Amino acid sequence: MNLKSTKPLSGFVELLPAEQRFVDACVAKMQEKVRMAGFEYVDLPAIERAEVLTDETDWSETATQMYLFQKGDTKMGLRYDGTVGLARFVAGNLNDLNFPCRLTQFSKRYRGERAQKGRYREFYQLDMDILGLGGLSANYDAEIIKLVADIYDSLPEVFGDYVINVGSRTFWNEFAKCLNLDKKQTDAAFVLIDAKVKLEAEDFENGLIEAVGEANAKQILSVFSEGYKKFTGKTPELDKAVAELDELVKLLGSMGVTTAKLNMATMRGLGYYDGIVYEAYSKTYPEIGGIGGGGRYGNLVGRFSKTTVIGSGYAIGTNRALITALERIDLSTYKSNVDAAVLVMGQPQVEYGMSVLAKLRSEGIVAVPFLDTDKKFKAQMEFADKINTKFSVIIGEDEVKNNLITLKDMGTGEQTGLKLDEAIKIILKTK
Amino acid sequence: MNLKSTKPLSGFVELLPAEQRFVDACVAKMQEKVRMAGFEYVDLPAIERAEVLTDETDWSETATQMYLFQKGDTKMGLRYDGTVGLARFVAGNLNDLNFPCRLTQFSKRYRGERAQKGRYREFYQLDMDILGLGGLSANYDAEIIKLVADIYDSLPEVFGDYVINVGSRTFWNEFAKCLNLDKKQTDAAFVLIDAKVKLEAEDFENGLIEAVGEANAKQILSVFSEGYKKFTGKTPELDKAVAELDELVKLLGSMGVTTAKLNMATMRGLGYYDGIVYEAYSKTYPEIGGIGGGGRYGNLVGRFSKTTVIGSGYAIGTNRALITALERIDLSTYKSNVDAAVLVMGQPQVEYGMSVLAKLRSEGIVAVPFLDTDKKFKAQMEFADKINTKFSVIIGEDEVKNNLITLKDMGTGEQTGLKLDEAIKIILKTK
Repeated sequence: MNLKSTKPLSGFVELLPAEQRFVDACVAKMQEKVRMAGFEYVDLPAIERAEVLTDETDWSETATQMYLFQKGDTKMGLRYDGTVGLARFVAGNLNDLNFPCRLTQFSKRYRGERAQKGRYREFYQLDMDILGLGGLSANYDAEIIKLVADIYDSLPEVFGDYVINVGSRTFWNEFAKCLNLDKKQTDAAFVLIDAKVKLEAEDFENGLIEAVGEANAKQILSVFSEGYKKFTGKTPELDKAVAELDELVKLLGSMGVTTAKLNMATMRGLGYYDGIVYEAYSKTYPEIGGIGGGGRYGNLVGRFSKTTVIGSGYAIGTNRALITALERIDLSTYKSNVDAAVLVMGQPQVEYGMSVLAKLRSEGIVAVPFLDTDKKFKAQMEFADKINTKFSVIIGEDEVKNNLITLKDMGTGEQTGLKLDEAIKIILKTK
Repeated sequence: MNLKSTKPLSGFVELLPAEQRFVDACVAKMQEKVRMAGFEYVDLPAIERAEVLTDETDWSETATQMYLFQKGDTKMGLRYDGTVGLARFVAGNLNDLNFPCRLTQFSKRYRGERAQKGRYREFYQLDMDILGLGGLSANYDAEIIKLVADIYDSLPEVFGDYVINVGSRTFWNEFAKCLNLDKKQTDAAFVLIDAKVKLEAEDFENGLIEAVGEANAKQILSVFSEGYKKFTGKTPELDKAVAELDELVKLLGSMGVTTAKLNMATMRGLGYYDGIVYEAYSKTYPEIGGIGGGGRYGNLVGRFSKTTVIGSGYAIGTNRALITALERIDLSTYKSNVDAAVLVMGQPQVEYGMSVLAKLRSEGIVAVPFLDTDKKFKAQMEFADKINTKFSVIIGEDEVKNNLITLKDMGTGEQTGLKLDEAIKIILKTK
């Protein structure tokens, strides 16, 4: 028989236990911050009907990356982000949610992108969304940015120094109206602004001139050279957008969020965002790319309900940052969670060993037995060494006879015959 | 525009926050037991290459239920259990795992079964597997059964009174050899034994006679009427199987596992099991059906590696039990995890409110702000009521001026002007 490959599919990741323990510890830290902020966890299906996934505005690129399939007559696919399902869920439970409601997700998403280093086809995102019925104050954007900064700050070994770039789609939407740009011109200008960071200054300028004409291009460029504040008094709507940005910047300052910076080129693509937008990058570890993004969407549930739900949400893509961190952190503290190996020397001692095992676990001690009693003592000790346990609890004929155990400190090598209760006290002291 | 349905796909479940909180609490309790037993968590891809999923012996029924699809040239599908991926993972990491190794998974699996009440197409299973290189003592079967019993015992409101039926494929394999049954006869007899509990005694008997002839049927029936112990001295292998069962029953007794019962009709289908097998049912809540099953498999990684890996594993299907429990438990204690709502009366108080919020959270208080400052006080109090918070922290002009907060106990309705530090002490006392 031909042996099959043991590799997971390209773009899919699986970790060894110690690596997984590090990743889980980091995720738990992040989720704890989100929990302290009162977000409630929802666990939505990974599969959605195709119609839920596929007709979003401007998701054409995403559509080709989707995992779509059919079962019976039903076309369906795997979610590519957390928002599509959330919109459906919220629309279906409007009467059972307390608005403004705070929902968090941590789940796998799927994109069949061309595989390359650091690109995953299956990846986790940690989502935080605050949803308001009919309206939602921009103050919540400030709250989310502060929360996101707290999360990144809690894991410097993963995210390093980072920046949260803050922009305003409201400002640009109103600015485009002031310039009388049509839909095509607006989209072309926004695509360029979104790409500004990757473009040479000259290419950006020429692109803008081609897209919207020289006079308009000059106006747009002046937003970057002279700042957004200059553009007041043109329309009440633009003034409102400017005031909103002012208030946000003020709040972020008073909250001590020093890592969030206004950057007017922050657009978050042409997708569903239409207010304040924000996205973060690691400066220390630029190779991990974007570490999260989000913003405000004006009508989350429009495809499912006539009710208006305004959202402000953020998603942290955890895979690339955490898996890259594995290459540089010291995994030795994550090597084991075992407090005691219970080594049973022979089959007649298994009953006694099992009672010791149960007692240890009931006292909060992570205990792993070695029960292959046909193996030699050497194999048993090798096992205890390999699993990096702090202690071994050795049980042979004599121990059973005297109702004792032999406790071996794996660090010092010291062995002592003890009553089980005494051993438990010693083991618990090291926890 | 036509509004799309807000329902998830049939057979897919999603819960409201309070329900999810109950489910998460139960799962955390189960996972903690598994963690205390030293199992290491692995998180494997939900998608596997089709060849990994589809050519398992006797999985023809499963194959038709699979979600299979193609991306580019690659045929793939969603995992239907935790074992297929585990086998691939273990075979690919033989040198990096410490045998006997203990791995646990808790992840979603997919089966496109005909939808019916209590049948899910996407469902969670909690897996525990102990894997040995070349061999694995049957003592580990006893350890797993004890662990499983501890898990069920920890959640009586979910599982109620239950029984873990224990059987032996080894016994039946050796017994069939003693009777000189061929492969076809053996399979037919095993299918009947597996279905015994659902059959009338007469149908079981007639089925056996048809499958293996009258004399052999009589022998098989006598295992049920007279017990497995009677069949010693026929072959050394059968004696070994009997001794193994004896030892297991003895160990379970000495460990005080009163819920595990020998039941020779326990077969676990025709799949990969070939030693001790066990499966559990709730007696209190028979409507939830099987609550888990497992056993020993002789060659887990055979399709991927020439190395022999013996496993003993168990999977708890959590969905049906937990979701059924939601219908009868009192969810009121799961309604909220919010300690304090921070109600901010006007936009000028938002800065102060945000600093209060940050302080509360840093002290371990789950705090949710109401920041729609254009809303009236009544709307703010209604929000605090709805989210079931224990306290409201009210911040208006006076509070800011005097550097205080007003603490409202939502239970008693009592309101007091306090320094924030004093309020924090009061709130923490109730946690």
